[in-house]
Amino acid sequence: MANQDNANTFPRHAQEFRLAVMSNDRIYMDYNATTPVAPEVIQATYEALWDAWGNPSSSYDAGKKAKAIITQSRESVAKMVGGNAEDIIFTSGGTEANNMVLHTAIEHFMRRNRDAGERNDGLLPHIVSSNVEHDSVKLLAEHLKKQGVADFTFVPVSKVTGRVEVDDVVAAVRPNTCLVSIMLANNETGVIMPIGEISRRVRSLTSQNERVFIHTDAAQALGKIPVDVMALGVDYLTVVGHKFYGPRIGALFVDGLGVKTPLYPMLLGGGQERNFRPGTENTPMIAGLGKAAELVTARLSKHESHMLDIREYLEERLKVVFKEKLHFNNHFQGSDRLPNTCNVSIVGPGLQGWRVLSHCKKLLASVGAACHSDQGDRPSPILLSCGVAPEVASNALRLSVSHSTSREDVDTAVEDLREAVELLEQKDS
Amino acid sequence: MANQDNANTFPRHAQEFRLAVMSNDRIYMDYNATTPVAPEVIQATYEALWDAWGNPSSSYDAGKKAKAIITQSRESVAKMVGGNAEDIIFTSGGTEANNMVLHTAIEHFMRRNRDAGERNDGLLPHIVSSNVEHDSVKLLAEHLKKQGVADFTFVPVSKVTGRVEVDDVVAAVRPNTCLVSIMLANNETGVIMPIGEISRRVRSLTSQNERVFIHTDAAQALGKIPVDVMALGVDYLTVVGHKFYGPRIGALFVDGLGVKTPLYPMLLGGGQERNFRPGTENTPMIAGLGKAAELVTARLSKHESHMLDIREYLEERLKVVFKEKLHFNNHFQGSDRLPNTCNVSIVGPGLQGWRVLSHCKKLLASVGAACHSDQGDRPSPILLSCGVAPEVASNALRLSVSHSTSREDVDTAVEDLREAVELLEQKDS
Repeated sequence: MANQDNANTFPRHAQEFRLAVMSNDRIYMDYNATTPVAPEVIQATYEALWDAWGNPSSSYDAGKKAKAIITQSRESVAKMVGGNAEDIIFTSGGTEANNMVLHTAIEHFMRRNRDAGERNDGLLPHIVSSNVEHDSVKLLAEHLKKQGVADFTFVPVSKVTGRVEVDDVVAAVRPNTCLVSIMLANNETGVIMPIGEISRRVRSLTSQNERVFIHTDAAQALGKIPVDVMALGVDYLTVVGHKFYGPRIGALFVDGLGVKTPLYPMLLGGGQERNFRPGTENTPMIAGLGKAAELVTARLSKHESHMLDIREYLEERLKVVFKEKLHFNNHFQGSDRLPNTCNVSIVGPGLQGWRVLSHCKKLLASVGAACHSDQGDRPSPILLSCGVAPEVASNALRLSVSHSTSREDVDTAVEDLREAVELLEQKDS
Repeated sequence: MANQDNANTFPRHAQEFRLAVMSNDRIYMDYNATTPVAPEVIQATYEALWDAWGNPSSSYDAGKKAKAIITQSRESVAKMVGGNAEDIIFTSGGTEANNMVLHTAIEHFMRRNRDAGERNDGLLPHIVSSNVEHDSVKLLAEHLKKQGVADFTFVPVSKVTGRVEVDDVVAAVRPNTCLVSIMLANNETGVIMPIGEISRRVRSLTSQNERVFIHTDAAQALGKIPVDVMALGVDYLTVVGHKFYGPRIGALFVDGLGVKTPLYPMLLGGGQERNFRPGTENTPMIAGLGKAAELVTARLSKHESHMLDIREYLEERLKVVFKEKLHFNNHFQGSDRLPNTCNVSIVGPGLQGWRVLSHCKKLLASVGAACHSDQGDRPSPILLSCGVAPEVASNALRLSVSHSTSREDVDTAVEDLREAVELLEQKDS
């Protein structure tokens, strides 16, 4: 449980949290881009900066203290995802974790073939992914494909459900498939992918010898829905701190790390993280990540229902205000989506998402992934992949709320949008 | 200049800094392993955790604020090393920076050969390094050599000077040499390598076409001696925050990044750091790194002379107490060394470094690199490489002081050592 008693000893009080988020009366609805850092996480980071600065590899007290914090955080992150502490490796972030998994799968395929004395008949390792992945999977995949290092199949998401369909993934698996890497929830639509079923179906296809590893990037799911590696049946799961009120580092879960499931380091160095990820440990941020994970474990169900309530209220209000002009870009048949993510377009000429947002006085939101914030008029490729028409996708607004978003915030944001749209329509008329 | 006025608004005062360092009356003399985080750095990190949590890629204020902090920090780091801000890339640490340089040099060699349409006559890229590098160069080099990806020459340091000699480095350069990677100062001996002269001599050997890149890992030098990329004439320089009172991240200087000198990313993702190092930026730690760099720029000369004074006092006191039993492991003819690093052995049976330190009640120090803290009785390979006899090297103590170490601290530490040695000698007799 979060320790509320510490609040008094902490220089800034938790009450200020909301103020910091809402600085200048702005309403932040871009929690899928990044979250503020929870006060408890700041406190843990702050304390470690002061008191646990020792080198965790040092054998005296200062080092031991740092090491103990890292051990504790590893346990907290493991608990959040339902795994074992020894299966968690801290990384610099989600990008590194995702990159490590793809490189590992390829390296493992090559070694297995080499060890088996098989002739390499030009058969490259093959990876199955989707067409709506984050750039840290997508761009790496395209690069590796271009380099002739691996083959990829990017399973398109269904235009009906907005998600990759299990049958399509299974159909994409070949004898040389070494990895299936599909995100747990999409960052723009919030659509939840059927990872558990994919794992079960793919495993039933393949023998232990020709093991196909299953990876999911849970960046957008953690802190919003329950995430359990056992239920998901994955071999690898990516954790990204700054999406759940934690610091800008990440972690990778590897089921039976180094024993049941391989992980080949991308960096070589001083042996930290059991050589899987060398480099002097970032103790303060690891302390913060552990604390953020603890908060998720303690508060998820409460937060989840609050976000759902707020998101539903937001969508209702938008419908009332914009009526037939409103188009929901992520209401798909038969798919679950994150409780906090609303993706809508206000249809009409001159109402491109970026134009609407730039005319908002209070609302802070985005039109899609932060990495693509310079996309301008171009419609989101993710939404196009999901079957949203280009002229609708160009007007998309991604409104992602949090456990601290209130109904009043929603009222303010919707009114702000109404005024912005009114202004733009007057300009255009 | 450091802003002392802020001290009052900051939750813990700078005076507590020394207390935190000296918790439980311990005397920390392991600043080469890691340093405490400067209060100003903690403050900058703390403030960014609260106020600059926006995604730097977001186009609204919260993102812009984060981006501005990153820009400011990049300038501060550049100023510390005498380079341009656009030539600085933030990394997760020194290990990543060093790994990137080696991979880049190899990749560049391969591309250049490919582009020139040259037949690959089995000529691998060749890298010149030393035999006293940090594991993030050494182990990667050994790995790449074993994999048949590159050839390496590990120039041995001179047993007279403790440093790599320029002539030896020059003699090791071959037509297929693509990189010279030598640390600026050794972490165990503090010996400063003649990087400036190496750069000039190597450059005079080679044409622009067959450019040999020069890299130095300045992890141990920054904050202890002046470091200037222009004077050193290097193409790449590694910066490690936690060695100069900064956070656990790093940076890489690349002279004319992407224009004059290549850098190939190890990670692919969302385009951050101009695609050279993708991943959502660790704004709070980058803020801290910038602040730590500012402090170095402002205070180096004062700190340098203080450390030198303290280190000389320490060595005098050790000589007085241990007399002919004392052996300096880093007093080399004709070499400069870091002002803070003392490496001594108290010669005699049963006085192995780890045994002496484990009997100290107040002194916190190490026998060598923190990454090798489990080396036990085995003498440091670095010291052996420098010509220290094995039975002397086994007893080595690395005592590294800081700008906050006082003469009283030295007295306490030396007395502590005296008592520990006395106790051990009684046990053994």
